[in-house]
Amino acid sequence: MTTNVRIDLSRLLSRLEALAAINPLPPTGSCRLALTDQDKAGRDLLVGWLRNAGLEVRIDQVGNIFGIMAGEDETLAPVMSGSHIDTVATGGRYDGALGVLAALETVETLQEAGLRPRRSIVVAAFSNEEGARFAPDMLGSLAYVGGLSVEDARATRGIDGASYGAELDRIGYAGTMEVGAIRPAAYVELHIEQGPVLDAEGVAIGAVENLQGISWREITIEGQANHAGTTPIAMRHDAGLAAAEIAVFLRQLAHEIGGGQVATVGRIELSPNLINVVPGRAVLTVDLRNPVESRLQEAERKLEHFLEMIAARENVRITQRILARFEPVAFDHRIVELIEAGADSMGLKHRRMTSGAGHDAQMLARICPTAMIFVPSIRGISHNPEEETAPAHIEAGANVLLQTLLTLANDGAVR
Amino acid sequence: MTTNVRIDLSRLLSRLEALAAINPLPPTGSCRLALTDQDKAGRDLLVGWLRNAGLEVRIDQVGNIFGIMAGEDETLAPVMSGSHIDTVATGGRYDGALGVLAALETVETLQEAGLRPRRSIVVAAFSNEEGARFAPDMLGSLAYVGGLSVEDARATRGIDGASYGAELDRIGYAGTMEVGAIRPAAYVELHIEQGPVLDAEGVAIGAVENLQGISWREITIEGQANHAGTTPIAMRHDAGLAAAEIAVFLRQLAHEIGGGQVATVGRIELSPNLINVVPGRAVLTVDLRNPVESRLQEAERKLEHFLEMIAARENVRITQRILARFEPVAFDHRIVELIEAGADSMGLKHRRMTSGAGHDAQMLARICPTAMIFVPSIRGISHNPEEETAPAHIEAGANVLLQTLLTLANDGAVR
Repeated sequence: MTTNVRIDLSRLLSRLEALAAINPLPPTGSCRLALTDQDKAGRDLLVGWLRNAGLEVRIDQVGNIFGIMAGEDETLAPVMSGSHIDTVATGGRYDGALGVLAALETVETLQEAGLRPRRSIVVAAFSNEEGARFAPDMLGSLAYVGGLSVEDARATRGIDGASYGAELDRIGYAGTMEVGAIRPAAYVELHIEQGPVLDAEGVAIGAVENLQGISWREITIEGQANHAGTTPIAMRHDAGLAAAEIAVFLRQLAHEIGGGQVATVGRIELSPNLINVVPGRAVLTVDLRNPVESRLQEAERKLEHFLEMIAARENVRITQRILARFEPVAFDHRIVELIEAGADSMGLKHRRMTSGAGHDAQMLARICPTAMIFVPSIRGISHNPEEETAPAHIEAGANVLLQTLLTLANDGAVR
Repeated sequence: MTTNVRIDLSRLLSRLEALAAINPLPPTGSCRLALTDQDKAGRDLLVGWLRNAGLEVRIDQVGNIFGIMAGEDETLAPVMSGSHIDTVATGGRYDGALGVLAALETVETLQEAGLRPRRSIVVAAFSNEEGARFAPDMLGSLAYVGGLSVEDARATRGIDGASYGAELDRIGYAGTMEVGAIRPAAYVELHIEQGPVLDAEGVAIGAVENLQGISWREITIEGQANHAGTTPIAMRHDAGLAAAEIAVFLRQLAHEIGGGQVATVGRIELSPNLINVVPGRAVLTVDLRNPVESRLQEAERKLEHFLEMIAARENVRITQRILARFEPVAFDHRIVELIEAGADSMGLKHRRMTSGAGHDAQMLARICPTAMIFVPSIRGISHNPEEETAPAHIEAGANVLLQTLLTLANDGAVR
């Protein structure tokens, strides 16, 4: 069932602009690190909009914000949609904010059209998604699904030494609602892709069917620093070369495994890092991602074998430190199909996608059927004040969200 | 013609120790950067020893120090031997100092044995060999052979902003002797290997027949920084990967060209250098060395082709800056044979070698028959306070130097 009702693009854009204007970064970005005065200002703005739209506002104990549009049958579990409004230090205008404000726009559009669905619809803004100030990222949604206690959340220390709990109290967003108290029947999150695929392919809508598993490690290679002129090749223990071999191997590995496998060596530090000295020490990071757990494990195994081989060949010592490991998340295929149907109903080009980044949706997927809608990021730029999405794509994404939420909220069998 | 006369090891070791004691670095190193107060103290000590040995001391206009032991026929060109006494910031006890003090030891030994050769023997200490304070390195010997004018040498600015000329005046070592005025019939330099070959092979004496050509460049790769999770492999322009490919290629190239070809990527800097961002920019250095000019050029050509290939394949922009380029130096085969004969006469194991590092001898080779004697550096460690050479090898090297200088100084046909 689809509707001909459409969101108000200019209202949505003006709210995105107003939020970004709090602590703007040229050309169109914003800096609102979690639980700072800027985040408080953003929260105040959002809560005002939620209230003006006639929604019931609730704040939970870790600072997650909810705006509830009552459905016809309040005994049914509601449908939830949202994202986050905190940013990284060099934040763009759309990352997170689009998902929250489009959910609000959807609710207002339905209200103005006199469309009251059976289930309530809840607009959600989760705390500290970025993790730029407090680790872990997605803290608010993690706590919401029971993955972190309120006590542990409040005890978290920021990179500036601040306490999550004290900062939450200070800005007045330590609410009374029990964490997780609103248990949704379904969760849908609209987000910018933060990658180049949709933009490069000229596709308006990504129907996100899963989220990559992530394996992060730091590798330290200890060889021997030696004179670059006087040390024959056969007598070298070149830690820098071993690091380079690992980077080249990982590219081959990504091709070999295929199926969305990505592998990145983003950081390399050599010592002593001088033109005429064979590197004695190298530290590098490896970022492996795959939407299928067994394949991610295969990539990890093959990397381990390669490390053993290269350590023996170059006679260097290799040690590792696991920095992060998350299993892939599979989203709900029925919601993914609803997203596709919504895009089809408006003649929008769409494709199935894997999310390469982490999102609140991956946490909500632990407690209810969940999926995501992606819209194109121009040139894939994100976490950058130049982050940009075309207005037409913002409109398309919000309208697909509206169709999807309306269908879910009218479908008693969703849960 | 060989002699049974031998140098006094304890005197030589005590002088090496006294020089290192001026500004000592534990365990056995020293810091005496060119034209500093510490260098002046070292020069004063040396000049005192030269005078005490009855040598005529001359200082030239760029600060090179000479001590002359008159031969039987002062109308003949003298034989010269020496090295330098300046150090790098983390200097060892032997680099340079051994060559100067062993030459002095040789002369004193000959005098004490009543052996007066036909030609004069000149002990030389060249200024600013290391280049650690003033560029270029080997400045004193370069000026001595006419490669740099006195004016240009004096105008050189140090990394601390100091002027070479002003510092030379300040420490009282701007001499009056015209640069290059003593034109040697031959030059022989004893030096520690600064590499691991002799130590690893258990060989006491390296008869150095040539000196590697050096090709240094800095390569800058501009790709595109992108999210490591959301950017498919096929859409990446990974500057870090391109840098790694270059490092791996260079190792293969060294094996392929063989014959003493070495290739080193000593420095890599990635931007933004973060675990979850595909590197957008990489700067790396390449150090290529080969004792044969045509092969060094072959290595450079093959590197150029590879850079073009990798730039196209990864769709990155590669630019280069040449940092240094020196042609190989071939030493005098007759002197190399004299060194071998001297080692044989004392039952010392020897081998022919290529010098991988730069030495004053490469400058002197422009104006007279020249060669070098290497003694083992334990584990190849140099430019490090832990630089070490066994006393037995110091004795062996100095005695081979004595045999070689005596033969050259008694041979009227050397020039």
